Amino acid sequence: MSELLVVGKYVPSIDALPKVVGKVKYLPDIKIPGMLYGRVLRSQHAHALIKKVDVEAARKLPGVRAVITAADIPKVLYSVDPSCPDKEILCSSQVKFEGDDVAAVAADTEEIAEQAIKLIRVSYAHRPAVFDPEGSCVETAPLVHEQKGSIILAHEEKDFGSVEKGFAEADFIFEDTFYAARQAHCCLETKGCMVDCADDGAITVWLPTQAPLNVRAQLSRALGIARDKIQIKNTPVGGAFGQKVVMDTNVPIALFLSKHAGRPVKIINSREEEFTASRTGYDMKVCLKTGVTKEGKLLAKQARVIMDNGAYSDQGLAVLRFAGVVFSMFYDCPNVSYHGSLVYTNNEPCTAFRGFGNPQISFASETHLNRIAAELGIDPVEIRLKNANKSGHTIATNAYINTCTIEECLWETARISEWQEKREMYESQDKKARFRRGIGITAMTHTGCSTRASGFLASGALIKISDDGILSVITPLAELGQGGRTAIAQITAEGSGIPLEDVRVINEDTDILPYSPGAFGSRQTFVDGHAALAAALEAKRQLLDGAARMLDCQTEELEIANGRVFKKAKYEETLASTRELAQYINQKFGRSISVSGTYADESAPEGGRTKDFSTYIPVYTFGCQAIEVEVDTETGKVQVLKATSVNDSGRTINPLGAEGQMEGALGQALGYSLTEDYVIENGSVKSDSFTDYKVLRAEDMPEMVIAFVEPHDLGPYGLKGIGESGVVCTSSAAAEAVFQATGVLIKDLPITPEKILSGLRSIANQR
Amino acid sequence: MSELLVVGKYVPSIDALPKVVGKVKYLPDIKIPGMLYGRVLRSQHAHALIKKVDVEAARKLPGVRAVITAADIPKVLYSVDPSCPDKEILCSSQVKFEGDDVAAVAADTEEIAEQAIKLIRVSYAHRPAVFDPEGSCVETAPLVHEQKGSIILAHEEKDFGSVEKGFAEADFIFEDTFYAARQAHCCLETKGCMVDCADDGAITVWLPTQAPLNVRAQLSRALGIARDKIQIKNTPVGGAFGQKVVMDTNVPIALFLSKHAGRPVKIINSREEEFTASRTGYDMKVCLKTGVTKEGKLLAKQARVIMDNGAYSDQGLAVLRFAGVVFSMFYDCPNVSYHGSLVYTNNEPCTAFRGFGNPQISFASETHLNRIAAELGIDPVEIRLKNANKSGHTIATNAYINTCTIEECLWETARISEWQEKREMYESQDKKARFRRGIGITAMTHTGCSTRASGFLASGALIKISDDGILSVITPLAELGQGGRTAIAQITAEGSGIPLEDVRVINEDTDILPYSPGAFGSRQTFVDGHAALAAALEAKRQLLDGAARMLDCQTEELEIANGRVFKKAKYEETLASTRELAQYINQKFGRSISVSGTYADESAPEGGRTKDFSTYIPVYTFGCQAIEVEVDTETGKVQVLKATSVNDSGRTINPLGAEGQMEGALGQALGYSLTEDYVIENGSVKSDSFTDYKVLRAEDMPEMVIAFVEPHDLGPYGLKGIGESGVVCTSSAAAEAVFQATGVLIKDLPITPEKILSGLRSIANQR
Repeated sequence: MSELLVVGKYVPSIDALPKVVGKVKYLPDIKIPGMLYGRVLRSQHAHALIKKVDVEAARKLPGVRAVITAADIPKVLYSVDPSCPDKEILCSSQVKFEGDDVAAVAADTEEIAEQAIKLIRVSYAHRPAVFDPEGSCVETAPLVHEQKGSIILAHEEKDFGSVEKGFAEADFIFEDTFYAARQAHCCLETKGCMVDCADDGAITVWLPTQAPLNVRAQLSRALGIARDKIQIKNTPVGGAFGQKVVMDTNVPIALFLSKHAGRPVKIINSREEEFTASRTGYDMKVCLKTGVTKEGKLLAKQARVIMDNGAYSDQGLAVLRFAGVVFSMFYDCPNVSYHGSLVYTNNEPCTAFRGFGNPQISFASETHLNRIAAELGIDPVEIRLKNANKSGHTIATNAYINTCTIEECLWETARISEWQEKREMYESQDKKARFRRGIGITAMTHTGCSTRASGFLASGALIKISDDGILSVITPLAELGQGGRTAIAQITAEGSGIPLEDVRVINEDTDILPYSPGAFGSRQTFVDGHAALAAALEAKRQLLDGAARMLDCQTEELEIANGRVFKKAKYEETLASTRELAQYINQKFGRSISVSGTYADESAPEGGRTKDFSTYIPVYTFGCQAIEVEVDTETGKVQVLKATSVNDSGRTINPLGAEGQMEGALGQALGYSLTEDYVIENGSVKSDSFTDYKVLRAEDMPEMVIAFVEPHDLGPYGLKGIGESGVVCTSSAAAEAVFQATGVLIKDLPITPEKILSGLRSIANQR
Repeated sequence: MSELLVVGKYVPSIDALPKVVGKVKYLPDIKIPGMLYGRVLRSQHAHALIKKVDVEAARKLPGVRAVITAADIPKVLYSVDPSCPDKEILCSSQVKFEGDDVAAVAADTEEIAEQAIKLIRVSYAHRPAVFDPEGSCVETAPLVHEQKGSIILAHEEKDFGSVEKGFAEADFIFEDTFYAARQAHCCLETKGCMVDCADDGAITVWLPTQAPLNVRAQLSRALGIARDKIQIKNTPVGGAFGQKVVMDTNVPIALFLSKHAGRPVKIINSREEEFTASRTGYDMKVCLKTGVTKEGKLLAKQARVIMDNGAYSDQGLAVLRFAGVVFSMFYDCPNVSYHGSLVYTNNEPCTAFRGFGNPQISFASETHLNRIAAELGIDPVEIRLKNANKSGHTIATNAYINTCTIEECLWETARISEWQEKREMYESQDKKARFRRGIGITAMTHTGCSTRASGFLASGALIKISDDGILSVITPLAELGQGGRTAIAQITAEGSGIPLEDVRVINEDTDILPYSPGAFGSRQTFVDGHAALAAALEAKRQLLDGAARMLDCQTEELEIANGRVFKKAKYEETLASTRELAQYINQKFGRSISVSGTYADESAPEGGRTKDFSTYIPVYTFGCQAIEVEVDTETGKVQVLKATSVNDSGRTINPLGAEGQMEGALGQALGYSLTEDYVIENGSVKSDSFTDYKVLRAEDMPEMVIAFVEPHDLGPYGLKGIGESGVVCTSSAAAEAVFQATGVLIKDLPITPEKILSGLRSIANQR
């Protein structure tokens, strides 16, 4: 690869202008003739029998075009997890959480739909419910799904080496229990969809989604409709963070409303529904036991994990497993035991969230490691270096770590955050001062390209170059605001030689998108970028052929880059622009350029899918963060002074976008660490608005320093995915910083003022 | 090519069902948020100076969002013909025909827009006008465009051999003058467009068009906007017939209305505007002089042609030239002279019409040839066979006729129409009977794939096969109702082995369409089919590779056809479906299939473009029709009893579609022959409704027999284009049939009852 001209440069998002001026049509902006407004009647009970649903009054309301209950639609059970279909489209005999789907209406206006919903009368008979996945006795707890026979949805047990042996050899053994709470996605755009069922059985779905082709497959499987009858027009996404990987449960409801009304139906969740009925991230209770030498070398570590699944299955097992993979591989430890349970409750169900279990397990294990370091009197950076994974090593899980940048990430974070100076300075600060400061540093590993949990890492791309030299690349990449379209444009521009401003990225409509499972697991720029690059390189080959004929010389003598055709020997002299070249090829030979590219994970096990921890992650990435805080010990309020986030990005395609993504990650992860308090009491979500559920605002953000470590050896132009890595180790670093400032170690998120004040009181009482 | 399973079969149009149930969204059905309704104030004068345009009252009308005149927009002159840009977007100082564009408004509703138009006051000063392209003295006629200095827009002179020498050698010389009138396109969907100008300069145009990419280039050239700033979303087309090749003049008007209003603007022509301001086909006055031997062999033929261009340039020169090409090559005649003039008038401008001049020149030359045959006492079929072109011959124009099927077409038409029996029977009928019958037979040549007038015959195609085995082909083909999408689906299915029901054809949106100039000149299925076939064959190659791995055998042993994978040696045993195979390839290797294909006319002269008659047509096609009529000699009314249409289609891709297209052609051409009377008096169109301009209705249609002659040696699966050939020789055959029935030879179209009665009176007077 010669010098790069587009990749690696600061490029403003190609979508920024239309978004900023309000020209992008999000789902709520899209109106089609005949469109109706749908609303769903959600359960107000966590667990109850449905005795009767009376929809007569709703049906009679003028302007109401369809009212449906379970009696009006096919009885199916579905789930994104094919191993446990457990969700009805509308509840037939029982509701299983507050927010469950009971009935739905479609009407001429939103107001009429809302009014009609209020006219539906449901008689319930309460049933005993289970809310605490751990506190309940598994044998006697009320069943959430009777057909399952147990509230345990899944169990994962992985043991590598012998932790018993490791504990026996250890100088010290540490045990801690942590609780990483649920986090709400808080997308600015709430969930929604529009569905139009044609008379011939064709179904069109307008949907903001992370995975248009996968959601099409999910809908197909759920309803037994052939996939080719379904067209998903993926609309611009106003935030996703994992919430929009799995099919929105509104989709089949809108579909049957549309069938009944004979017209298109749009359902958009209210903000309240977004909190109470639209899925959150999983929480995680983590009990850790670790054996170390007195020098701080890890000999054995054990995790026992319990996750609240909520009422319906989703991605819980995959999250539980992924947390186990990252726990087991990080750090270098010869004996590892990971046991986890996923438990049904009558709480709101959960789904994927940025980081996929890693922020939760990492909060526990990194905070635990800092406690060990503190107890042993070892510096947090030092204990991590001592136990760091190494490139070229095979670890306990039998995974081979081909590139490892944990040491560089640690050094770089320490340098940027002025770790040593700050740490020492705060150690010696006045422990009686009202405002006290602390700094924490923690690290993480993550995947740089999804996992091999659910099939192949694959993608395709189609490219056409118009006769005016404009290149369109059709890519399955889903733009979630993360800048993926811009990255694809850069990779395509770099690969083809067409200048960035002449590249158009087309990524909507399952009828034209080449195959890709979707945007999750930090995979997209990697796999879709690979495919786009393959197509772009073929386009360049054809451009070079044309240029050689145009300039009457050999292909090998020529190069095309950034819109310029030139001789390799005479870089500075532009012989033609790519626009002129495209026009020449078209007019002289009547050819236009239409090419394609594909990518597949050729080194995957047969079938591309595995449960084996040794091959679960195709590309490893590492990162480190330092969080510096000031705590008001009178109010307990934590002010973050500075956040340093250093990540292994492989080659950064667009530093501007990558930095933005890392800054956003810090905002989301600091909110999770400090203020986002998801309160659910007896199955009832109390934090159902932005007044109660406090996300950080721009004014709350600290000074942020983002840096990347770039080992250029993987992916298109050497990239690794960074969609998630920025949220993983923030909470533990924040907890460590608060601990240094106050002496209070918070083991359950979020680190609220109340918990800090309570901790300070305990310390005072002990004195 | 082994046995074909999809190509050549009767296949219902893949678009039929959604069209029949009203689910297809034509432009008038498309509404987007903020959309305004535009109307254009058309001139009521044929030629006048604009003294003043007062738009104040219109601007003040509530609900009016923009009112524009020439003063509000850039001053440009444009035309599809780059050699003579002569049209303003809105007239600045002069109107040049009744219907010319004076001002425009955009308003909240159609009614307000209409009302606003009526409030605009224009003061005109009349100018002398020219309406008759031939009757006017060229030197003294009022100029239509002062900057041109003459009303002669173009002149074409082609001489091959020496007609003087041929006339000198001839036994007889015949001279006739014919007039082939204008024909209105009469699309069920009137012209219209919707334009949205974004703040960042991006322009989106919703447009029913025959040539999305070409229209984009036209708009770009007219306004000096880079093509990549323009996205054309080509909407389903409700009839085109040549009317929608060139950019609708409403497009730049809607564009500036949108710019001024800051909102999307839709303009849809009324039916009256469709007749008076939306362009018609060209008329043609043709003076013929032919020298023959007494045996009927053609020795020399000469045509002098005058065409009324109307007020603005369009495709006139190309039509004039194409008529010359077909005149010169048909039949085999050593000495040919073709001179033609295209004359500006203050009549409504003209544009392309199905057949592109051939129906007009063919009416003249074929009627003339029948008169020669009658005078010499030679049967019309015989005189044609005597002068027929021959495969492998090089003709006077130096064109090499690689395939020629004129003899087969003549024999087949004679056989099906029972030519000999009917002709003799009607010769001997009672010449005094009130109802008298006649049969006429004539022939034609046409292009089977457009011309090399305007650049390369080229196309591209992109194919993706989803993991569920559904194939999407992205093709630049414009569906005009002719069934092109179905033909592409068949070619793609046949080539790839994917069954027809699993093929989706995507052909909208210039941002994704591979290059192709558009749908005209009977070219589409040929060029776009070639490109789709190339992509489909590559897809099949990749499917076969996957199948060989799936079935653990050699690629060469396997075949895929119609959705089945099987061993060549064991045709009947299905080893897998293509759906299973696609799923296997995706799940086993993580690959999806994304491929591309292109087509270019490699045998074209350099640059693909020519004015030379010898290479003008890339693929020749031939045809023949017999028309049998009964004339009521008291009313002059002609009833067509039977129409036989035989055409060389190469290989017919879809007989059902091809027959439908030929039946439609007969309807249009019989209407042109008999009832469609475009009346324009002093520049004022009198036939401005379907009451006055009579197209044939279903009940008017005769028994029709359609047959194809299929020499399988060209194009994808050997096809030739048949979009136009069915309309070419109908009028002359009808004229001949009426002549046999009545003795009246009508030389100016249409053959109305009044003309027949007038002819009958003349004959009676001569007796």
